[in-house]
Amino acid sequence: MPKGRKGKIDSSCVKIGIFDSGVGGFTVVRQLLSILPDVPVVYFGDTARTPYGPKSPGILRTYAMENARFLIEHGANIIVVACHSAASCATEELRENLTIPVFEVVTPSVEKACRVSRRGRIGIIGTRATVSSNVYPRLIPERRPGAKVFQNPCPLLVPIVEEGWLRSRETRMIVKKYLRPLKDRQIDTLVLGCTHYPLLKKVIKEKAGKRITIVDPSREVAEKVTAFLLRRYKTAPSGKKVQKNRFFLSDLTPHTVEIVRSFLGKKVELEKACV
Amino acid sequence: MPKGRKGKIDSSCVKIGIFDSGVGGFTVVRQLLSILPDVPVVYFGDTARTPYGPKSPGILRTYAMENARFLIEHGANIIVVACHSAASCATEELRENLTIPVFEVVTPSVEKACRVSRRGRIGIIGTRATVSSNVYPRLIPERRPGAKVFQNPCPLLVPIVEEGWLRSRETRMIVKKYLRPLKDRQIDTLVLGCTHYPLLKKVIKEKAGKRITIVDPSREVAEKVTAFLLRRYKTAPSGKKVQKNRFFLSDLTPHTVEIVRSFLGKKVELEKACV
Repeated sequence: MPKGRKGKIDSSCVKIGIFDSGVGGFTVVRQLLSILPDVPVVYFGDTARTPYGPKSPGILRTYAMENARFLIEHGANIIVVACHSAASCATEELRENLTIPVFEVVTPSVEKACRVSRRGRIGIIGTRATVSSNVYPRLIPERRPGAKVFQNPCPLLVPIVEEGWLRSRETRMIVKKYLRPLKDRQIDTLVLGCTHYPLLKKVIKEKAGKRITIVDPSREVAEKVTAFLLRRYKTAPSGKKVQKNRFFLSDLTPHTVEIVRSFLGKKVELEKACV
Repeated sequence: MPKGRKGKIDSSCVKIGIFDSGVGGFTVVRQLLSILPDVPVVYFGDTARTPYGPKSPGILRTYAMENARFLIEHGANIIVVACHSAASCATEELRENLTIPVFEVVTPSVEKACRVSRRGRIGIIGTRATVSSNVYPRLIPERRPGAKVFQNPCPLLVPIVEEGWLRSRETRMIVKKYLRPLKDRQIDTLVLGCTHYPLLKKVIKEKAGKRITIVDPSREVAEKVTAFLLRRYKTAPSGKKVQKNRFFLSDLTPHTVEIVRSFLGKKVELEKACV
């Protein structure tokens, strides 16, 4: 995102609502705040019901609607679904039932992967729910006919991130083990299909090797939202941020506070809220 | 438990209700069914809201009451809290609000650990919530003055069990890493403070070494319940099992079905239910 675009959006008209199954979506918040520092965000992390990964599509659709409604009640007029599991099961339902724009982490990653892949061999890592939803194998060949998609669910990576083992020996072994079947299929592009994974980007890059291009959905969705806002509000003056960012979590423990700091790279005020 | 005691309880008077945050409590079910094959059980696994580990005590108390009421509605007249996180936060509240006996996994393990420990140096592994609750460091010295308790939270072990990596190289390394600080404190007894951990018992035993006695709470609570039933119903005739076992989960995925089979060692019918 060109630096010069920063701050061209009238921040009094926009509030971005982001929800995730827990704290992973803070990787999206971090990207948004870095590109659009003046636009207020309201975040809801469903830490009381996390993780969404192993849950069924039906229950995820219910949770997604509740979360989006909470954000709208708190002033959001754009929704970003930061959770891959919810994005792959619940985006259609949200778009059918809400009158405001809904962005999610999957589509921009599909577009980016199709654009950058040299030979159309694309690997996906994510939770079991994201992989089982088959959202990537369905969407990628639609956009790039002939592309081959190879998936591997990595259920241990979320707890590893939350444990703070970002570069430990065990983490490197586990990442290597999870990437092995994808490398065997000679992928040239790898989508980090879970918002926690950007925190393991260094180890993933190392184990993937130089020939594999990494696609980070938190970055892709933030750029997509920014492009949309610049299109819609291009004539509006930039403004001083009038509303503060708010970060809600459905459950709060001392460890959550610690994890959020590692995700955002700074300490923020966290509020507890039920949906 | 002596084999001869099997079947001495009038199964028409008793239905054991067991709840857990997810599928881990099936290790308790397995022990109960092996000791008391004729007594019907009703199980509720809160897979929609799992894991309880990282959640706060307040929310766990709410969930525990909801789960216990569900079991009572399904005929339970004894409650077993199979989840360590819920047992350590919510048992008092359950006993204050319910008129039927409430058993839980912590007390029998405390008693066993105090009884078998040679030098009173007792290690505890569990989820972050169980460790933070300090229930073991509080209860063990009450029962065995002078005993020292050393804890280490092991948040990766639950997802490892659910991934089915019961004896992989990565699992052995992670178990070794988690046990290291406890072995450094020269524990002679180790309590598996989470219902998932019995599935890792072989690796844990191997990494703990022969000098450390392992206490398995799923076994201890099953023996405690059996002793109680034998005391209460000792004159009652044994009877053919008239009610079938029922296993409810608040969310069901194909992977859950697979995990339950590994926990119980056989396939059972699973029903979906909300509390």
